[in-house]
Amino acid sequence: MGARNSIVLFFFMLFALSSASPKHKNKYKPCKHLVLYFHETVYNGTNAADATSAIVAAPQGANLTILAPQNYFGNIVIFNDPITLDNNIHSKPVGRAQGFYLYDTKDTISAWFGFSFILNSTDYQGSINFIGPNPVFEKTWDISVVGGSGDFFMHRGVATLRTDAFEGKYFFRLHVDIKFY
Amino acid sequence: MGARNSIVLFFFMLFALSSASPKHKNKYKPCKHLVLYFHETVYNGTNAADATSAIVAAPQGANLTILAPQNYFGNIVIFNDPITLDNNIHSKPVGRAQGFYLYDTKDTISAWFGFSFILNSTDYQGSINFIGPNPVFEKTWDISVVGGSGDFFMHRGVATLRTDAFEGKYFFRLHVDIKFY
Amino acid sequence: MGARNSIVLFFFMLFALSSASPKHKNKYKPCKHLVLYFHETVYNGTNAADATSAIVAAPQGANLTILAPQNYFGNIVIFNDPITLDNNIHSKPVGRAQGFYLYDTKDTISAWFGFSFILNSTDYQGSINFIGPNPVFEKTWDISVVGGSGDFFMHRGVATLRTDAFEGKYFFRLHVDIKFY
Repeated sequence: MGARNSIVLFFFMLFALSSASPKHKNKYKPCKHLVLYFHETVYNGTNAADATSAIVAAPQGANLTILAPQNYFGNIVIFNDPITLDNNIHSKPVGRAQGFYLYDTKDTISAWFGFSFILNSTDYQGSINFIGPNPVFEKTWDISVVGGSGDFFMHRGVATLRTDAFEGKYFFRLHVDIKFY
Repeated sequence: MGARNSIVLFFFMLFALSSASPKHKNKYKPCKHLVLYFHETVYNGTNAADATSAIVAAPQGANLTILAPQNYFGNIVIFNDPITLDNNIHSKPVGRAQGFYLYDTKDTISAWFGFSFILNSTDYQGSINFIGPNPVFEKTWDISVVGGSGDFFMHRGVATLRTDAFEGKYFFRLHVDIKFY
Repeated sequence: MGARNSIVLFFFMLFALSSASPKHKNKYKPCKHLVLYFHETVYNGTNAADATSAIVAAPQGANLTILAPQNYFGNIVIFNDPITLDNNIHSKPVGRAQGFYLYDTKDTISAWFGFSFILNSTDYQGSINFIGPNPVFEKTWDISVVGGSGDFFMHRGVATLRTDAFEGKYFFRLHVDIKFY
C-alpha cells in the first residue's frame, strides 16, 4: 500500500467518522416507529366513572369570569387516558397516557403538555416521556420525546400529534406518530 | 502492509466506528453513578415549619368528595426536599430536590414527576433535571434524566427510584440511583 | 507503508474516533446560538387585557396565610409571554414563551420552569422545549433544552437565564442565552 492509498484510506475514514457524528443528517433516520391513539374523556361534574381527566387548577385570586373563559387560559388538566392501536375507543388498550396539560393562550386555544406513555402490550413494555406545546388548531404539531424506560431506555425522538376526533368540550382523541432517532 | 492487511484494518476501523455510534450497546455503560436519598414531609395543615411540600391543586368545578379521594387523582404537590447520602433524614443535606408531582390514576396510586436535584456538596456542584412517571406500588421505577448544569452539563441518563420508607400519608423517603450515559 | 506507519495511522484513527465520541469536550462547541428576551406581565386582578400570565394554583386544604406568603411557596403560574430580540417590550415579537413555573422554596424565592419558545421570525421557525430550576436571586442560572421542532428538530442544549429587569411583583423580563450542542 503506497502513500497515496494511505491518504485515500485516511480521507475515507474521516468521511466515515463524520457519518458517525451526532450532527450528521444520516443519523435522522428513525430507528423505531410507533403509531398510537389516545382517548380523553374530561370530567364534566357528572361522569366520574368514565372520566379520564379533570381540570385541577384555574386562575385564583382572580375574577374567574374574566381570565378563565378566555380559551381556558390558566386551566391545568390531569389525565390518564387509554392508548389503542387504532382509532376505536373500544379496542383493547395497549397502555395509558398519563400526565398533564395546561391552557396557555388568551386569544386562541393552545396548551403545553408533560406526560408519559406507559405501554404494556405484547410488542412493547416500558415508558416514553414527552414534553412540548400543543397549538390546538394546527393540523399537526411536534413535541419532544425526552427519554424512556424498558424497551425505550435512553431513547429520544419526536412525536407528531394530530387531533383525530373531538366531541364538544369533553371528549377528544389524539393520533400520535412517534419516531425515535 | 499488503492489501489484505489494509482490508483487515479497514474492517477493524468500521467495527471501531460502530462502537462509537450512539446506537451501540457499548455506549450504555454509565459514565457517572450517584446514589442519593430525598425525604418529603407533606404539609398537613399544622406542620408549616417542618413541611417540605404542599398540595396546591385538586379537581375544581368538581365535587371533591367524588374524584379527589380516588387515590388522590388530580392533586398537584410542590416540594423542596432535602437530599442526603444515606437514609438518615438527620444527615447533612448535600442538596435539595425541587419541583412537583401530580396524582394521575383513579384505581391505584400513581404520579408523574417533574423536578430537579440542586446539589451543593464537596463532590458535586450543579443541577440535574428529571421527568417521568411514578407507579407508586412498583418495587422500582425509571425516570429520565434530561439534562443538567455545572458538573452535569449536557448529561442524560436514567434514574431508578424506590420508596425507601413512608409513614402514613405525610412522610416518605425515596432512594434514587442515577446512571448517566 | 511499514508496520510502524500502520501503527501510527491506527493510533491516529483511535484519536480521531475518540474526538467523535459524545463524551469528548470537542463536542461542546455550540452549533447554534440565540439570544432572546421575554417579558412577563402577571395578572393582578385588574389587568386582564395586558396580563401575559396568571397564578392558577396555590396551597389548598391549607391556611393560605401561613404557607403561601412564604416566598410564594406553592403557587403555579401559567404564562404566554412575547419574545423579542432586544430588551424593549415594544419591539416586534419574534415568538412566544409558553408554559408554567411554580414557586418551590419557603426561605427564599426559587422556581421550577417547564415551557417552550414558539419562534416565528424571518430567521427561525419552530419550537424549543425547556425544563429546569430558577434560583431567582442568582446572577444567572442554567436550564436544559430537551428538544424542539422545525429548525430545532432533535436539538439539545443549555439556556442561561438572567433577570434583565423587574418592576414590583407584576412585571419581569428574562434574558435567555441558548446554546445548542
